[in-house]
Order: sequence, then C-alpha cells, then structure tokens
Amino acid sequence: MKRYKGYLIDLDGTMYRGNEVIEEAPGFVNTLREKNIPYLFLTNNSSKTPEAVSEKLNQMGIYSTPDHVFTSSMATAKYIKHQKNNARCYVIGETGLYTALDREGLSVTDEECDFVVMGMDRDITYEKLARACLAVRNGAKFVSTNSDIAVPTESGLLPGNGSLTSVVTVSTGEDPIFIGKPESIIMKEALKVLGTDEKETVVVGDNYYTDIQAGINAGIDTLMVFTGLTPYEDLPNLKVKPTYHVENLSQYEIT
Amino acid sequence: MKRYKGYLIDLDGTMYRGNEVIEEAPGFVNTLREKNIPYLFLTNNSSKTPEAVSEKLNQMGIYSTPDHVFTSSMATAKYIKHQKNNARCYVIGETGLYTALDREGLSVTDEECDFVVMGMDRDITYEKLARACLAVRNGAKFVSTNSDIAVPTESGLLPGNGSLTSVVTVSTGEDPIFIGKPESIIMKEALKVLGTDEKETVVVGDNYYTDIQAGINAGIDTLMVFTGLTPYEDLPNLKVKPTYHVENLSQYEIT
Repeated sequence: MKRYKGYLIDLDGTMYRGNEVIEEAPGFVNTLREKNIPYLFLTNNSSKTPEAVSEKLNQMGIYSTPDHVFTSSMATAKYIKHQKNNARCYVIGETGLYTALDREGLSVTDEECDFVVMGMDRDITYEKLARACLAVRNGAKFVSTNSDIAVPTESGLLPGNGSLTSVVTVSTGEDPIFIGKPESIIMKEALKVLGTDEKETVVVGDNYYTDIQAGINAGIDTLMVFTGLTPYEDLPNLKVKPTYHVENLSQYEIT
Repeated sequence: MKRYKGYLIDLDGTMYRGNEVIEEAPGFVNTLREKNIPYLFLTNNSSKTPEAVSEKLNQMGIYSTPDHVFTSSMATAKYIKHQKNNARCYVIGETGLYTALDREGLSVTDEECDFVVMGMDRDITYEKLARACLAVRNGAKFVSTNSDIAVPTESGLLPGNGSLTSVVTVSTGEDPIFIGKPESIIMKEALKVLGTDEKETVVVGDNYYTDIQAGINAGIDTLMVFTGLTPYEDLPNLKVKPTYHVENLSQYEIT
C-alpha cells in the first residue's frame, strides 16, 4: 500500500452504524494516531457541531477532538467565506450550520442576503421555504450543505437535506451549489484543513455514491469498506473502482 | 364559434387577478347563465373549499354556487374513490383537501394507508414529510393535487404544491400521480360533474401551460385569454395553439 500523509474518514457505515461502533474502527484510528498520521472525519451531516460529533466518537472509543471533525456545514461556511467575506446569509438549518457560519464570521439575516444556505432542518416551515424562494428569485446565491435524499433512522429512511432543498430548486428553477460528498468542494476544503494535498491523501468510506465518488471527483485515492451502505456485490458493476477495497478496516494495513 | 354545451373556466388570471375581478368576467358568466349553459370553475387551488371559492366569486359579482366550483382537491378525492372505495389516506394539505376527501367518504389516517395525498400545506412540517416518505416507501400510492411550482402572492412567488411534493418524490424516488391541470385527470372528473363530453365542452383559461395544456391533453377545445399569466407575445411560439384566443372575454361570443 502507498504511504499516505493524511486520511479523510467517513463516519456512518465506516466508523459506526447509527449508535453502534464498527468493531474495527477504534483500532484503525489508534494506528493512525500511533503513526502520527493526520486524519479528519468527514460527514455530510449538517446538523451537528464538531463538538457533538467528537463526543459521540469518543463515547464509542474512537479517539477524536472537535478538530478532527469536518462537517458539510463547516465546508459550506468556508466555501461561502472564500466567495465573499462577511457574506449575509439567509439560513435554513440546525445548530451545526448556524455555528459553522458564525465561526467563519458570516452573518445570518432574515433581510436582504447574499446567500441562501440550506442544511438539514427538522423544524422546517413553509415560511422558511418561502423566504428562501423569494431570496433566490431576488438574486441570492443558492448553496446547500449536501444532496443526500434520505437519512437512515430507526424509523426508516426519512427525508434528507437534498430532498428538502428540492422545494427551492423546483419552485425557483435554480439549482443549488451542493457542498458535501460526492461534490469535490467539501474535499478541497477538507484538504486545506488537513494540510495535505490530493496525491498524498486517501478517502475512507462505505458509500460508493458519496464517499468514494467524492474522492474520485477530487482526484484523491479511495479506500472502500463494506461495513456500511454499498454491498460487496455492487463492486463488479462500479464503472470507476475505488483505489482499494477491504471487507473491513482490519484488513487494511496503514503504512 | 361552435356552440358548446359546457364551459370549464379557470379562475386566477381568467375571472380575477388575486383579489381584483377581471372586468369582463361577470358579464361572461351572466351570459352563460342567461343561455342556460352549464359551467364549472376549475382551479388547481387545493386549499379552499368550494364554498369559500364561491363566496369569493360572488363578492366580486361573478355568479356562482359551491356546485359551480371544482378544485384539484375535489378531483383528487374523486380520483382516489374510483381507485378504491373507502381508501385510507395519509394527508398533507389544508381544509379544502380534508373536506374533499371526507365528502367522498375517504378516511384520513396517520397509520397504515392506501394513499399518500399531498396538497398545498402552509403548515408543512418535517414530521409530516417524513411520514409521507415512510408510507410511500411502504407501498402506499402517491397522489398530489397539482404540480404548480409557485403561487403568486403579494409578497412574490411562493412555493407551490408541486415544489412541496418534490420532497417526497426526491427522497423516495417515486413520482406522484398529479391530478390538477395540465393533467387530464382533473378534466375527466370535471366533465363527469358538468355532465358534458369532451367534444361539446370548452376550457377557458389564461395559463397556456396549465389551463390550455389540460384541454389539449384531454381532447377538449380551448379558449385562451390574455388577461393573466401567459402574454400575447408567446402565442406565435406555442407549438399546439389554443382552439380560440381573445384578448379578453368580451371579445368571445357565446353562441
């Protein structure tokens, strides 16, 4: 195996499944720590702060600090800041998104805005959607944390941010800029945080259509695991294969 | 002009604009009454009961009873009843939809259902959308009153039922059966109520992409007016032309 200087690691399906740790995950992360190899947990989840994500990981025995966590909300905030410092944002989202925007010095407003920013919002209302539509029609740039159509929960597959975002897309005819996996935007922002470049980094994930595709789109090597969403049977049919694939993380030797 | 035995008449842009009556509308309707020609007001609005719509018309001097009104919610209820008598429906919508389903003897439930029925709902919540997604994934048939992407209001173009419906479409990958204009379903249900057949009926409307297209799709002659949405300049570019077009209703002679 190639020696990588940085790891971008997916969470759900790779480190845990729902609230259950994946057996091989803590050891994999510990090996990275022992070898002093930088890593960043990369999640499309836009609702949570890095502090909350890190706490969940630590409770599962997966070592992390908030600095090890990079959410689609954080990537969104960084992306917007690059576009316009101090941008005014009309926001539909939860704590994770509001916190991320605030930390990048962006202002949140219900008045005239430069950006409409959508993330997962389980308190979505018609009025919020209406304001977003009006702002987009009024010329605001339209950004959405991620295009996930569904969120796996104990009750089943519930609407994901990609499906909530479609209200504004369909109503205004304007496509958003999606930030999260499989887009390369989140990957480029993550590399900046990790401090490594494409060629010396590897993406680890279970979902071909988000994690692995994101790596492919950004020109980053990929390690696919079969502890999550995409089943092993799909592998032969994938047009562009991951760089590596293993059944679980214990079968991958970190060099 | 051909002598028609029945008229299907659009409301917004044809009879009124928002809360303002269109000058030629009351006279047009009065002539139909004098000549004893049956007419039905046909609206994609799913929120209101026929009583509320009729009251608005009467206040504007346009003669109507609730029996003169046929909404997309009423068409939806009739359509579902044809599919399954006593069908159990999970409903996202407002009074107009609940009332219509009730009047057709359909039951509304939050439990197991045969149909997921979506109409305009300005009290939409994530939980409602989540339940709809779970039911559709669980095999319920998916019906939506209309596909309008936007609703014109004094504040601007707000999200229409078609854009709200897209949350469930995008999240589940299941396309709904849309009932309202431009679909022919609402037209066929309206003809049954009016008691005339396709060949002896004419559709009157201002919106080429809903009213006129609905007539074309259902094989009903069309009378296009330019008092509403579609501008006269668009006429030369329309592939399939309306049967008749007039600037306003005073220019059409009812025979």
